[in-house]
Amino acid sequence: MSFNTFGHLFRVTTWGESHGPALGATVDGCPPGIALTEDDIQPWLDRRRPGQNRHTTQRQEPDAVRILSGTFEGRTTGTPIQLTIENTDQRSKDYGEIARTFRPGHADITYHQKYGLRDYRGGGRSSARETAARVAAGGVARAALAALAPQVEIRAYMIQMGLKTIDRMRFDWNAIAQNDFWCPDPGVVAEWADYLQAVRKDQNSVGATVEVVARGVPAGLGAPVYGKLDSDLAAAMMSINAVKGVEIGEGMAAAALTGRDNADEIVMGADGPEYLTNHAGGVLGGISTGQDVVVRFAVKPTSSILTPRRSIDIAGQPVDVVTKGRHDPCVGIRAVPVAEAMMACVILDHLLLDRGQTGGVRGAIG
Amino acid sequence: MSFNTFGHLFRVTTWGESHGPALGATVDGCPPGIALTEDDIQPWLDRRRPGQNRHTTQRQEPDAVRILSGTFEGRTTGTPIQLTIENTDQRSKDYGEIARTFRPGHADITYHQKYGLRDYRGGGRSSARETAARVAAGGVARAALAALAPQVEIRAYMIQMGLKTIDRMRFDWNAIAQNDFWCPDPGVVAEWADYLQAVRKDQNSVGATVEVVARGVPAGLGAPVYGKLDSDLAAAMMSINAVKGVEIGEGMAAAALTGRDNADEIVMGADGPEYLTNHAGGVLGGISTGQDVVVRFAVKPTSSILTPRRSIDIAGQPVDVVTKGRHDPCVGIRAVPVAEAMMACVILDHLLLDRGQTGGVRGAIG
Amino acid sequence: MSFNTFGHLFRVTTWGESHGPALGATVDGCPPGIALTEDDIQPWLDRRRPGQNRHTTQRQEPDAVRILSGTFEGRTTGTPIQLTIENTDQRSKDYGEIARTFRPGHADITYHQKYGLRDYRGGGRSSARETAARVAAGGVARAALAALAPQVEIRAYMIQMGLKTIDRMRFDWNAIAQNDFWCPDPGVVAEWADYLQAVRKDQNSVGATVEVVARGVPAGLGAPVYGKLDSDLAAAMMSINAVKGVEIGEGMAAAALTGRDNADEIVMGADGPEYLTNHAGGVLGGISTGQDVVVRFAVKPTSSILTPRRSIDIAGQPVDVVTKGRHDPCVGIRAVPVAEAMMACVILDHLLLDRGQTGGVRGAIG
Amino acid sequence: MSFNTFGHLFRVTTWGESHGPALGATVDGCPPGIALTEDDIQPWLDRRRPGQNRHTTQRQEPDAVRILSGTFEGRTTGTPIQLTIENTDQRSKDYGEIARTFRPGHADITYHQKYGLRDYRGGGRSSARETAARVAAGGVARAALAALAPQVEIRAYMIQMGLKTIDRMRFDWNAIAQNDFWCPDPGVVAEWADYLQAVRKDQNSVGATVEVVARGVPAGLGAPVYGKLDSDLAAAMMSINAVKGVEIGEGMAAAALTGRDNADEIVMGADGPEYLTNHAGGVLGGISTGQDVVVRFAVKPTSSILTPRRSIDIAGQPVDVVTKGRHDPCVGIRAVPVAEAMMACVILDHLLLDRGQTGGVRGAIG
Repeated sequence: MSFNTFGHLFRVTTWGESHGPALGATVDGCPPGIALTEDDIQPWLDRRRPGQNRHTTQRQEPDAVRILSGTFEGRTTGTPIQLTIENTDQRSKDYGEIARTFRPGHADITYHQKYGLRDYRGGGRSSARETAARVAAGGVARAALAALAPQVEIRAYMIQMGLKTIDRMRFDWNAIAQNDFWCPDPGVVAEWADYLQAVRKDQNSVGATVEVVARGVPAGLGAPVYGKLDSDLAAAMMSINAVKGVEIGEGMAAAALTGRDNADEIVMGADGPEYLTNHAGGVLGGISTGQDVVVRFAVKPTSSILTPRRSIDIAGQPVDVVTKGRHDPCVGIRAVPVAEAMMACVILDHLLLDRGQTGGVRGAIG
Repeated sequence: MSFNTFGHLFRVTTWGESHGPALGATVDGCPPGIALTEDDIQPWLDRRRPGQNRHTTQRQEPDAVRILSGTFEGRTTGTPIQLTIENTDQRSKDYGEIARTFRPGHADITYHQKYGLRDYRGGGRSSARETAARVAAGGVARAALAALAPQVEIRAYMIQMGLKTIDRMRFDWNAIAQNDFWCPDPGVVAEWADYLQAVRKDQNSVGATVEVVARGVPAGLGAPVYGKLDSDLAAAMMSINAVKGVEIGEGMAAAALTGRDNADEIVMGADGPEYLTNHAGGVLGGISTGQDVVVRFAVKPTSSILTPRRSIDIAGQPVDVVTKGRHDPCVGIRAVPVAEAMMACVILDHLLLDRGQTGGVRGAIG
Repeated sequence: MSFNTFGHLFRVTTWGESHGPALGATVDGCPPGIALTEDDIQPWLDRRRPGQNRHTTQRQEPDAVRILSGTFEGRTTGTPIQLTIENTDQRSKDYGEIARTFRPGHADITYHQKYGLRDYRGGGRSSARETAARVAAGGVARAALAALAPQVEIRAYMIQMGLKTIDRMRFDWNAIAQNDFWCPDPGVVAEWADYLQAVRKDQNSVGATVEVVARGVPAGLGAPVYGKLDSDLAAAMMSINAVKGVEIGEGMAAAALTGRDNADEIVMGADGPEYLTNHAGGVLGGISTGQDVVVRFAVKPTSSILTPRRSIDIAGQPVDVVTKGRHDPCVGIRAVPVAEAMMACVILDHLLLDRGQTGGVRGAIG
Repeated sequence: MSFNTFGHLFRVTTWGESHGPALGATVDGCPPGIALTEDDIQPWLDRRRPGQNRHTTQRQEPDAVRILSGTFEGRTTGTPIQLTIENTDQRSKDYGEIARTFRPGHADITYHQKYGLRDYRGGGRSSARETAARVAAGGVARAALAALAPQVEIRAYMIQMGLKTIDRMRFDWNAIAQNDFWCPDPGVVAEWADYLQAVRKDQNSVGATVEVVARGVPAGLGAPVYGKLDSDLAAAMMSINAVKGVEIGEGMAAAALTGRDNADEIVMGADGPEYLTNHAGGVLGGISTGQDVVVRFAVKPTSSILTPRRSIDIAGQPVDVVTKGRHDPCVGIRAVPVAEAMMACVILDHLLLDRGQTGGVRGAIG
C-alpha cells in the first residue's frame, strides 16, 4: 500500500474528489476470463449509495459505474479495469467559509498543513465519497472470487450504534438487508431508529461498530510476516474514513483472556481440521485457518454537526464552526458495504498472492 | 508491505527462524550520514531480551547485534544496513512430538497447510523471536529520527494485563522503566506480579494491552488514502505476533461517542494550532496533526501452556497438547519494546515519504 | 514497476485499449501546488497524435485530455490525477479475420496464450495507442519539473530510420520540430521522406533509432543498485511498444572501447565538476553526474504490413496474414514524444525519491 | 525494483560493501519445498569467483556462501532465505589517496555527491563484488526453476571482447565452459588471450559483449505493460556494474530492418506454434513466445587502469589518477555468471507472477 493504491497483485488505485467531475478506481491485476459487466458492480454501489434511506445523507447521486477498459465481450482480459463514476450532484454553493476554516475532527487542517492547499469542496479527497470507488473495485473482486473461490461469502453488518448494541442471541443473517442499519438483530431496529432520530434532532452524531465476516476462505492465505492476512485487513479497514480501531476475532478483548480459554481446540472433521471455537477470528500466524475470518472496526461519529465547535481559520483566528449541509448522523451505516468491498479485495489479493508463491498447494493432514 | 518487508522508503526486511543459526533485518533506504554503531542498537535489544526478568521466558540469548554493511566510519552511507543476531541458545532436544502435532492457537497448522512443511523448532519463523530483528531495525530508525526530527519521543507501556488495568490518574512516565511490566502505574505493580505468578502456577497465561505514544511528530505525515499514517500503524502493530486488535486515539470506544464529544476543538497557540483534546490520537484523515500519536493494541494470551488442550496431529489423529519449555506467561510484556520499534520505523518512513512527495513544506496557518 | 504501473514515488498507471471507450493514466504521487491544467498537457499529446503528417497513420483522433481529479483551481493537490482521453475514431468494421489469426511479430499470439482471450480490436492493450496515456502523464511530469527543477530540458529526436542515418556534424536542435521525422539533421529530411515513401509503396515498413537527452539534471539522482537511474530508464524505454534495445551513453559501442578512451576526465569548473567527454551518458554507478543524460533505443519495423506473411489461426491452421488498415510505415516517428514523456517521468520520480532518502543534500566538492 | 531490491514476487535484496565484513542477499518469496543447500549455490559462485583464471583480478576470495535462514532439512520453507558471504581478503592498505580523489568513469564522485560520504574501500557498494550476492540469489532461482520448470536452461557467454568478435558459424555450446572467456567460439580463444594480454601490458582495459539465452521458457510470461518480460530483463541487466546497453533479439539492429524481414513467421508444430526465425528474441508485446529468450548487453571497459587520467580531488584540485591494485582488464568476463543469475531470477519471478495473476492457464491453439 502506498499513496492511493492497495493490494499486492490485485491492485486498486482509487482517484477522485467529492465535488470533482468524477471519481473511480483503476483495478490492475485482475485475473483474465472473469465474467464482468457494469451489472455485476452496480448492485453493490446501489447498496452504498447515499439517499437510500432516511438515516443517511440526502445527497442524490445515481452513482452509475462505467467500465472504460479491461473487459471484452463481457469478460476481463487481464488488463487494467477502469471504473468511473460521475459526480452529478455537485450542488453549487458558496464555499467561502468552509474554504477558510478548519472543522474540528476533520482532515481539513491536516490536508492544508501537508499539501499547502486543499480542495475544500465537500471534503475533497478526504470525503467518504471516495469509498464509492472502493465499492466498485470490490464488485470486481467479488466477480473474480465468484469464479475462483465460489464458496466464499462476505457479509458485513452493524453491531453497535452509539450506545446501542445488538443482542447476539437474536442474530439473523436474513434480517441484515431488511432494515436501514444493516442490523442483524431485528429486535433493536425500531429502537435504533428512534435513537438516531433523537441524535439528529440534537444536532449531534454517533459512532458505530461494523463487523465483517468472510466465510469459506480456504486455509493458507496470508503472507507472513509483513503481509499477514490480518495485517492487511487491519490496514484496509483502518484506511476507511473515520475508522479508529480494528479487531480480528476476540480483538481488544483478547487482553483479558487466559490461554486456556483462548485456545481454539482442533478436532478432525470429515473434510479436514475443524475448530471448536473461533477466538482467532480465522487467522493464525497471519494465515487463514479455513474458519470464518471475522473483523470488526469502530467508526467515529460524523464530525460535521450542527452544534458549534471551537476552531480556527486559516489566518489563525478563532471561529465557531457549524457544519450545515447533508451529513450522515451515523456514517457507520454507509461503511457496511465498504467493509465488504475491502474484505473482498483483500481475500482475492491473497488468493492470487498465495498461488503465486506456493501454487496453492496445501500440506496434507490425515 | 509484502511478504517479509515493510515500509515505503525506509524498508525493513526481517529474516530468520527461532532455532536457525541467526536472524536479522536488512534495512534499505536509511538516509546517509546518520551516526550509527552497534552501540546505538544494542540497548534497545537488551530491553526486549528474554531472561531479563522473572516474568519472561528464561531462554538466555545475548542477542548481540552486528552491523555487516551500510555504515562507514560510524555513519550510515545510504546503502543497505544488514543487522545480524546469532542464535546461541538453540537448546538441542527431541522435537518428535512438536514436529507432528499442532498446538491450538499457534501457527503450526497454518504454516503446515500453506507451505506443506515447516521449521517446527521453536516455532520457526512464527516465533516471537522474529521481533528481535524488528527491535534492531527500530534502533536504526531511532538513530535516523534523532538526526532528522530530534524532538520525536517514542514510548510504549502496558496498560492492562489479563483482568488487571492501570489507574490513569497515577500515570507516571518515569515508572515505566522501573518495573518488570513496563507499567506506568507504580501502584499496581505488586498486584500484577502476584497475579502473573498465580496465572503461571495455574499452568495458564494471560493477554495484555500495550499503548505506544509518539510525541513531537510534526503535522503532515501520512499518505492518504491507502498509505495513511494510521493505516500503516495498524498494519505494523497487527503484524506483531499475537496481536488481535489495534486502536488509534479513542479506538473501539469511538463507536459509543457523539460527534459533539469527539470533536477535538482547535485554538491558536504560540507555535501554531493546538487541540484541546486528543480523541483522534494525533491522526486526522490519515495525516498527523502534530499531537501525540497514540496507538494501542491487544496481545492474546500465550498459546503455549502446560494445561492440556485438544488438537490433532499430522495424521489427523486426536492428541492432547501440553506445551513444555520456556514460555512467557504474558507475551505482551516483551511486545512493549517491539511496539516502540514499529512506531519508530513507521514515523521515519513517513517522514521520508512526505519529504519525497511534498518536500516537507507545510501550509501556513496564521 | 509491476503490471501497469511504473515509478517509485511518481507512480503512473496507464489503462485502456485501442478501441475501447477511452484510455488514460492515473498519476499518483505528484507533488502538490504545481500549476496544471489541460492546456499544460494537450500540446504534448498533439505532438504525438496520429494523422499529424503524411508519414504516420491517418487514424484521426483529437486525443483531447481531460483532468478528472487531483487539481483544484489550476494547481495539483497531491492527490491522484486522473487523465482521460476518449477514443472517438473507433471505426466499426468486421474483425472476423483478425479475431482468429495471429499477426507475425505482433503480441496477438502471446496475449492469447497468456490470458486465454484478447481484445483483438486494433491490438487492444498492446496497441501503440497506449502511449498516448504515457504522453499525458509525461505532461504532468514536465509541469512538476518546471516547478521543481526548471533547468531541466528534455528533447528526443530520430537519428536513424531504416538504413538512413543522420550526420552528427549537421546536428541542429532547432530543426527537430520543423520536419515530419523529428530529425535533427535538416540535410537528410528530403531523402528520408523519399525513402519512407518507397518503403510504403513496397508494402513494407522500417525500424528506427530514437535518442532522448535530458539536460540540466542535477548530479545525485538514482537509487543504486536496483533502482539505478539507467536501470529505470532502460526499463522505461524497453516498455515502449516495439523497442528492442536501449543504450546509455556509448551503449553497445562501449564493448569495443578501451578504458583509456572511455574515461570521462574531470576538471573543476566554476560551478563544480565538469567532464571533458560524456561516454557515460550522464550516469555513473547508476547515479546522475550532472551531465546530459543520453539514452537511445531502437524501434523495430511495424509488423502490420501489406505484404503477406505466413502464420496460423486459432485453430492451428496455416494462414497468410496481410494487415490492412491505417498503420505507420515507421512507428519510430511517433515514439519520439513518448521517449520524452518516459524520460520526464523517470527524472521527476528520481528527484522525489532522492529528496525522500537523502533530503537532496549534496556532498561538497571544492 | 527500488533501492536494493528487485523482483515482483521473487524478491532479492542484496547488501554489503566490497571491503566490509560480509555481503549477501535476502531472498524473499521463494516457493516452499524446493531442495536447497549451500551445495546448490556454491558452484555458481565458484564460476564467478575472482582469481579463477589469469585474466581476472587476483584477489583471492573463497566466496563461501552460508544459508542462515529459510530452509529446513534441506528444503525451502517459503520464508526469507538469507545468503551470506564473508569478505576474507580485505587487504589492509593505505586508502589515503583513493579516499580523496575521484576516479574517472567510476561511481566515486556520484556516490559522494548523492550521499555526502562514501565507503571508498574497494569501491564500497559500487564494487563489482556486489554481483557475488546476485549469483548466490541466482542459485536459489535456479533451484526453484529446476523444480517448477525443469526444461528451462540458462546459458551466458561472451561474443565480443574489445575489437574481437566471435564467428557465429563456429558456435559451440560445449566450448563455453572450457576457456577463460566463456567464449562459444573455440577458434578465437588463443587470439583473445593474446589480445587481452596486450591490453593489460598497455596499462589499459577493454569492454565486452555478453549474450544470455534462456531456453525452454514457456509462452505467456511477462506482465504488460510496465512489467513486461523484456522491460524487466533490460532493468536487470542494466543494473549490472558497467553495463551501458541492453538488447533483446535483434536489439539495436532492429532499426535497420524492414517489417518483411523482421516478421517471425509462424507454423503449427507437433507441440504448438513454432517460429521460423527469432528476430523477436523470444518476447512479443512483453510476453514470452516460447522461443529462446535472447538478451545481449555491453560492458564498458574497466575504469581502473594504470594509465594516468585527469581528475579532481574532494577539494576540487586537479589530480592525475592512476588506479593500482588488482583489477580485471576486461570486467565483462566476470559478468557472464552474473547475467545468468539475473536471467534466472527474472524468469522465476515472472513464472510466479504469472501463476499469481492467470493461474498459469494458457489459451489453446489448435
